[in-house]
Amino acid sequence: MNRLNRTNLNNLRHSCAHLLAAAVMELWPDTKRTIGPAIDDGFYFDFEFKAPITEADLPMIEKKMREMLPSWKSFERHELSAEVAKKEYPNNPYKHELIDEFSENGKKKISFYKSGNYWDLCRGGHDEHPDKELKHFKLLSLAGAYWRGDEKNKMLTRIYGTVFPTKEELEKYLWQMEEAKKRDHRKLGKQLGLFVFSDLVGPGLPLYTPKGTLVRKLLQDHANELQKEIGYQEVWTPQLTKADLFKTSGHYEKYKDDMFTVHSHYTDEEYFLKPMNCPNHCVLYGSQPRSYRDLPVRFSDFAPLYRDEKPGELGGLTRLRSFSQDDGHCFCRQDQIEEEFTKVIRVVEQALKPFSLDYWIRLSLWDPTNKEKYLGDPATWEKAQTTLTQILKHTKISYKEAQGEAAIYGPKMDFIAVDSLGREWQISTIQLDLIMTKRFGLTYTDEKGVEQTPVMIHRAILGSPERFMGLLLEHTGGHLPVWLSPIQVMVIPITERHVEYAKQIVEQLQNVRIQIDDRNIRMQAKIRDATLQKIPYLAIIGDKEMREQTIALRTREGKDLGGIAIPTFINQLREHLEKKI
Amino acid sequence: MNRLNRTNLNNLRHSCAHLLAAAVMELWPDTKRTIGPAIDDGFYFDFEFKAPITEADLPMIEKKMREMLPSWKSFERHELSAEVAKKEYPNNPYKHELIDEFSENGKKKISFYKSGNYWDLCRGGHDEHPDKELKHFKLLSLAGAYWRGDEKNKMLTRIYGTVFPTKEELEKYLWQMEEAKKRDHRKLGKQLGLFVFSDLVGPGLPLYTPKGTLVRKLLQDHANELQKEIGYQEVWTPQLTKADLFKTSGHYEKYKDDMFTVHSHYTDEEYFLKPMNCPNHCVLYGSQPRSYRDLPVRFSDFAPLYRDEKPGELGGLTRLRSFSQDDGHCFCRQDQIEEEFTKVIRVVEQALKPFSLDYWIRLSLWDPTNKEKYLGDPATWEKAQTTLTQILKHTKISYKEAQGEAAIYGPKMDFIAVDSLGREWQISTIQLDLIMTKRFGLTYTDEKGVEQTPVMIHRAILGSPERFMGLLLEHTGGHLPVWLSPIQVMVIPITERHVEYAKQIVEQLQNVRIQIDDRNIRMQAKIRDATLQKIPYLAIIGDKEMREQTIALRTREGKDLGGIAIPTFINQLREHLEKKI
Repeated sequence: MNRLNRTNLNNLRHSCAHLLAAAVMELWPDTKRTIGPAIDDGFYFDFEFKAPITEADLPMIEKKMREMLPSWKSFERHELSAEVAKKEYPNNPYKHELIDEFSENGKKKISFYKSGNYWDLCRGGHDEHPDKELKHFKLLSLAGAYWRGDEKNKMLTRIYGTVFPTKEELEKYLWQMEEAKKRDHRKLGKQLGLFVFSDLVGPGLPLYTPKGTLVRKLLQDHANELQKEIGYQEVWTPQLTKADLFKTSGHYEKYKDDMFTVHSHYTDEEYFLKPMNCPNHCVLYGSQPRSYRDLPVRFSDFAPLYRDEKPGELGGLTRLRSFSQDDGHCFCRQDQIEEEFTKVIRVVEQALKPFSLDYWIRLSLWDPTNKEKYLGDPATWEKAQTTLTQILKHTKISYKEAQGEAAIYGPKMDFIAVDSLGREWQISTIQLDLIMTKRFGLTYTDEKGVEQTPVMIHRAILGSPERFMGLLLEHTGGHLPVWLSPIQVMVIPITERHVEYAKQIVEQLQNVRIQIDDRNIRMQAKIRDATLQKIPYLAIIGDKEMREQTIALRTREGKDLGGIAIPTFINQLREHLEKKI
Repeated sequence: MNRLNRTNLNNLRHSCAHLLAAAVMELWPDTKRTIGPAIDDGFYFDFEFKAPITEADLPMIEKKMREMLPSWKSFERHELSAEVAKKEYPNNPYKHELIDEFSENGKKKISFYKSGNYWDLCRGGHDEHPDKELKHFKLLSLAGAYWRGDEKNKMLTRIYGTVFPTKEELEKYLWQMEEAKKRDHRKLGKQLGLFVFSDLVGPGLPLYTPKGTLVRKLLQDHANELQKEIGYQEVWTPQLTKADLFKTSGHYEKYKDDMFTVHSHYTDEEYFLKPMNCPNHCVLYGSQPRSYRDLPVRFSDFAPLYRDEKPGELGGLTRLRSFSQDDGHCFCRQDQIEEEFTKVIRVVEQALKPFSLDYWIRLSLWDPTNKEKYLGDPATWEKAQTTLTQILKHTKISYKEAQGEAAIYGPKMDFIAVDSLGREWQISTIQLDLIMTKRFGLTYTDEKGVEQTPVMIHRAILGSPERFMGLLLEHTGGHLPVWLSPIQVMVIPITERHVEYAKQIVEQLQNVRIQIDDRNIRMQAKIRDATLQKIPYLAIIGDKEMREQTIALRTREGKDLGGIAIPTFINQLREHLEKKI
């Protein structure tokens, strides 16, 4: 997300959509124009062209836009009656439909905006000096889009574009787009041999190869070591459960359509694949009496989760139908909330450290103008929100408050990671839950022997290790940190007579994931293959290295580190692994 | 299983069922008797009583049996027509039904057997000198049972009993039964806080507590370390898959009714929860080209599996609806079968070593009189069976050939563990599969560049870690080996002034799972609680121990090991953990 004022940026983008439509109408006057809103990364405009256009036409449209731009000094607002407005769009049923809607069938006047010689039905929201401000645009692509998103309607042609306040920002964005294509983790996952998809198995259900399984496990272990330090105990809970569990938790009512249903031959009872672990953890908490001294009780769980995502919305590892999470739940007293949140924040920071990721926190609070939609009593909410805000003020992490973004059961913090291309990924989350423990009738006995209800904190460290693997592949362009790389060192003997020495090196590098490429092919081909596999270190050995008991070290980036003695290399590697570089 | 000749034992047991029926008819002459077969552990007889009896009546029946026994010198066979036979059982529709069936509606004569003054419709199979051989019997329990197992029929009263050739065998069996009750892993699992079941979640779906999760994980790691050494690479494959996968593997046709079906809101395609990993591993194997040099390719997988077991057949951890396996598949050339089997046998032996379990191997071969029912060509079968037999001859493991017990796709070896009560549990398995790789069209390129089909070996080391946990709990009576115990040492400070020293001890015992019981209760109560939890070592500390920098060591068996210096204890523990004692 761009850090500019979002409204100004939207105005800029929407203005550029006008300019696009103006150019199209100039080039193909018999086109039916429809709507052109600003979107997250730019804008689009939907048209019904008389004859289809192609992406090859985009430069011509851009050129026309640039020709017209100097005459666009401002946006002027005009008000028209519906009747007059319709005459502006002869034979354009889309605009007529909009006019009827906006004018409430002729009852109200509607607004048009004019810039240069072009005007169009519009509710407004433009920049003030288009000729000066609209310079840094680019048309990006074409797509088909149904009128009003309804597949029963006619398919229109959508032109996507973007515009930024400065040349630098536009160039950065275009570079990001280009880089993102190269770094597509689905492509990299295949190239690095980490996971595969299969038509026999189904969409959103990857099979992890030994290499991918290793990365997944190392990420799990990484999160697990850190959460163990703050008292999270690993549990393992069933993935298949009766509807009763979700009726108790409330998910049945709210989340039923996002769960896979399961059928047994022996019962008509409804079963589901679990989409989250919290209800199971409530059952575990409730399976024995708890005293105030036992709290906090903290469970972590890597059991697989399942969500019935739309096939069209699945994308590599970033949205899956089956995945796991470094998921955990903390059952604690109200007076322990602050400490528990603080601990988790610290662990998330430690967990993110090895990845050179920027991040910030979104603090999601309730909507103060609509308190009724939240569950639980307002005093507890106020107190909890103040606590969370105080905690964040004490950390050095930048955060933004998001009013109205809280879950219905409590306020939450989401860690938003910013990758090397500046793209944002929601990863870790820490959520206060003032409700679910009540629904499960969970209690603890306080100092006075009175039964009390604990609160629950839902939290994830890296989130889903599978999704995080996808993020990391794109963030690093496949250059996984050494400690995460499935193969850390590839030994490349130049000829067959160097293979024996290669084996000696492997012997010396214990606890390192090392392989020898002893294929009978040229050294350059071996280097190319190891580089394509993004193996961090290539240890090339020939006569000189054998004689001097060294290796010629080379990185996957193509950097030649020269001859290096084995003990020196071992020390360097050990440091990398210990520090998780 | 008793090692006696099974036929003789069955005859003995069936004879005793006659004796039981004779006593019942003597005591309650208006009872309707039905059938009384021998079963695995004894025999039963089903009756329709006029007035219900209770288990309190069993001694009276036993007494009557003993009174009658001296007159049972032999079993005499008589042949009767159906008509005459029916007169023997006035008002007994059960016997009439059997008589019609056995006589083919009066066409054939049927046999009766007489001993003492009692006779009964019977196909035969008795011992020759009941008065001498039937002495060591015991009636065990009562249960309800539908006539012919059909719930639409009348509920009868079933009396269970057993009989052995010798007094010692009977006593051993009764001791086993008694011990088994005490060692019931469901009871122990609760007492040791390892797992819980919940009505909200469903039958056969345990939730593992932190302690149970640890045991499960240690068992997985134990198997995993060993299988890694012989080249198995861990993979992780989806639990949810399209029917297409199982149609390709053949499971759809053979195994469909044992799988849970899954429904997505977005497709009508059939989905299943996987009951085994082999089809997924075939997909992984097939996801890249393989050369003869790459083989064997070996995958291991701990992904959860699901089987739609009948609710009535579920039992604690020994039969579950969701479980995992230390499952693995080896894709290899024909000439590698021997080596691969041998490696796995060695690993299974190593894996079983720490558990003091006896075991033997059942070698399941094809039925030489019915070769048509097996898939694959006979020459390959013959060769494979010879190979497997040769391998077993070279090991020192006792094995038995089981003709006709092979899977349809190939011969197999099953490890049968014998626990401390003499009960048998099938655990590890190694199965040759000559078919599935063909079904998936898997290939490798041989030395000549020709495409060949690899064979596949299915194998498990301990089998399911969950089930193995159940076995171990019963085998050890909850006394898990030290390396598997969730808490290895409980430090028991006698009074509050010893707590500080307790903490010092904990500091010194790094990497040991150790806790302090600092509750303000009497030492004896703390000892009792730790013993109930079956914690291997209790380190009791008072003034003397503080002064002498020792601990008073006590085992869960109640053995007092006296004062011991901390370093000595650390060494002892380290040895236990390294050797997995």
